[in-house]
Amino acid sequence: MNYEMIVAAAERLANKARLTPLLSSPFLNEIAGRQVLVKPECLQHTGSFKFRGAWSAVSALPEKIRARGVIAFSSGNHAQGVALAARAHGVPAVIIMPRDAPRLKIENTRALGAEVVLYDRASEDRDALGENLSEARGLTLVKPFDDPLVIAGQGTVGLEIAVQAAEQGVTEADVLVPCGGGGLTSGIALALEQDAPEMQVRPCEPEGFDDTTRSLTAGRRERNAQLTGSICDAIITPSPGEITFPILHRLCGPGVVVSDQECLAAMSEAFRRLKIVLEPGGAVALAAALYHKDEIEGEAVIAVASGGNVDAALFSDALQSFGD
Amino acid sequence: MNYEMIVAAAERLANKARLTPLLSSPFLNEIAGRQVLVKPECLQHTGSFKFRGAWSAVSALPEKIRARGVIAFSSGNHAQGVALAARAHGVPAVIIMPRDAPRLKIENTRALGAEVVLYDRASEDRDALGENLSEARGLTLVKPFDDPLVIAGQGTVGLEIAVQAAEQGVTEADVLVPCGGGGLTSGIALALEQDAPEMQVRPCEPEGFDDTTRSLTAGRRERNAQLTGSICDAIITPSPGEITFPILHRLCGPGVVVSDQECLAAMSEAFRRLKIVLEPGGAVALAAALYHKDEIEGEAVIAVASGGNVDAALFSDALQSFGD
Repeated sequence: MNYEMIVAAAERLANKARLTPLLSSPFLNEIAGRQVLVKPECLQHTGSFKFRGAWSAVSALPEKIRARGVIAFSSGNHAQGVALAARAHGVPAVIIMPRDAPRLKIENTRALGAEVVLYDRASEDRDALGENLSEARGLTLVKPFDDPLVIAGQGTVGLEIAVQAAEQGVTEADVLVPCGGGGLTSGIALALEQDAPEMQVRPCEPEGFDDTTRSLTAGRRERNAQLTGSICDAIITPSPGEITFPILHRLCGPGVVVSDQECLAAMSEAFRRLKIVLEPGGAVALAAALYHKDEIEGEAVIAVASGGNVDAALFSDALQSFGD
Repeated sequence: MNYEMIVAAAERLANKARLTPLLSSPFLNEIAGRQVLVKPECLQHTGSFKFRGAWSAVSALPEKIRARGVIAFSSGNHAQGVALAARAHGVPAVIIMPRDAPRLKIENTRALGAEVVLYDRASEDRDALGENLSEARGLTLVKPFDDPLVIAGQGTVGLEIAVQAAEQGVTEADVLVPCGGGGLTSGIALALEQDAPEMQVRPCEPEGFDDTTRSLTAGRRERNAQLTGSICDAIITPSPGEITFPILHRLCGPGVVVSDQECLAAMSEAFRRLKIVLEPGGAVALAAALYHKDEIEGEAVIAVASGGNVDAALFSDALQSFGD
């Protein structure tokens, strides 16, 4: 896994992924006490950065293998990214989702052309189900983060940040990234190591699900005690990946851990000041930029806003709780 | 007022205005029955396209005149655009606002460095107040729409649409534009006449405030019967402008008139499918694209989403009324 793979992914993604802008607001600078730049990947196709990694992986497959189709396990953003990437390549996608996943996410994934296979969390073995389907139909698994091609796709966010920040005169900054399994964070870190070596990447996580922050301190992969109960569901994973963690350990500064309330407040500020829609997991880095200023060193901070797939009810609650 | 003035404005706006992306969603295409592209000017500085026209006007002033400062009448998006453009040039801005304007808008305008002068709608003469201030302090008036430099700034949206749509393979389309006084609509029409002659601009307005649509039918400037009572407050003006109307009349197709309910539904779809925040007036063109398909001719439609400065309460209502 290296920088060149990210550049190669960027070539495959040219005119396929959306070039998201780099947003700012004087009101956010005031709260943060420094210049704040926001990379809104909620504006990416399917509403999250996941489309980049999915496209990178699907587009890199040999044509004959790709033609048989792809398979993914996901109840969320990765599912939609894989579904759209497969459809755009004209190949089948099978997404394995828990039967109790939100109906809207199941419907959206189907509407993007994927075949959704539901399983019962209590009685069925998800992995065995996936393996049987893959073997029977020759489907290729697209992992959510621990795959060099997926990391390379997410790393294209870093290539764009380096160019766009430099256009605004920013070459030194803390780059805050919402971190689940570490695909996005490690990809951005590899890209910036080369293209903006004076920037430091910092993984951001919700309280109680800070496996990466603890892993960086311990120097080895730590696990979360639980996997449910966070409003930041999009970025909850058991532990950093086997491939992603060594990259994070080598390149990242300390993690920043934010509360659910801070995420909701950041969603409200993003609504008011940037006119973008963030889901809680997509807002952890902005929350860190706005409400953890003492943990940030640089004169500027760049926050990746990684996704916006949030229910209307939760979004309205955030606006109501943290409005004027 | 001509195309060359728009190109000149684009040069002054380079690296000053944000280059907003051109968004899309397969779900919106399905509702509209054709390809839909959305130009989200809600992501522009200050949350609306108005920054472009304000910057265009302020940046074109001779330095000595500009140094004395600028003045504008506005209770909304134009105020914030002028305030930020003046501050970035390091010159004073005076904004005259009605005393009963929403407190948040007054505070935002002040926070952007402008001096806000409040007047009483019932007892004070706004124009006389403005003239006295202008004369006493040598301030230059920045009009909201009926000024060639302002139209030129708004027209840069059209230059970008032509390039970005062509990148997505779209050269023929109905281009739907939220229309108040016609600055944005006429500027885009002039830009596209040159850069994308197979596109047709269509002004979009809310029911009961369809002065431009009626004016285009009548061939002369018609007035609105009333100026209050619409949720689309940002785009309510007495009539099309003296400078803008002849341009609209020469270049635009028929207007499209949408209901308040359609605006709210379009805001909800923009939230769900594009992850952007629109105010009602900023959503009229998207509403026309989604819910007036029989009035649209092209195989593709491009909707300008002109602004996102909406209160949390109204936004939440839209999500609640038009969610799943």
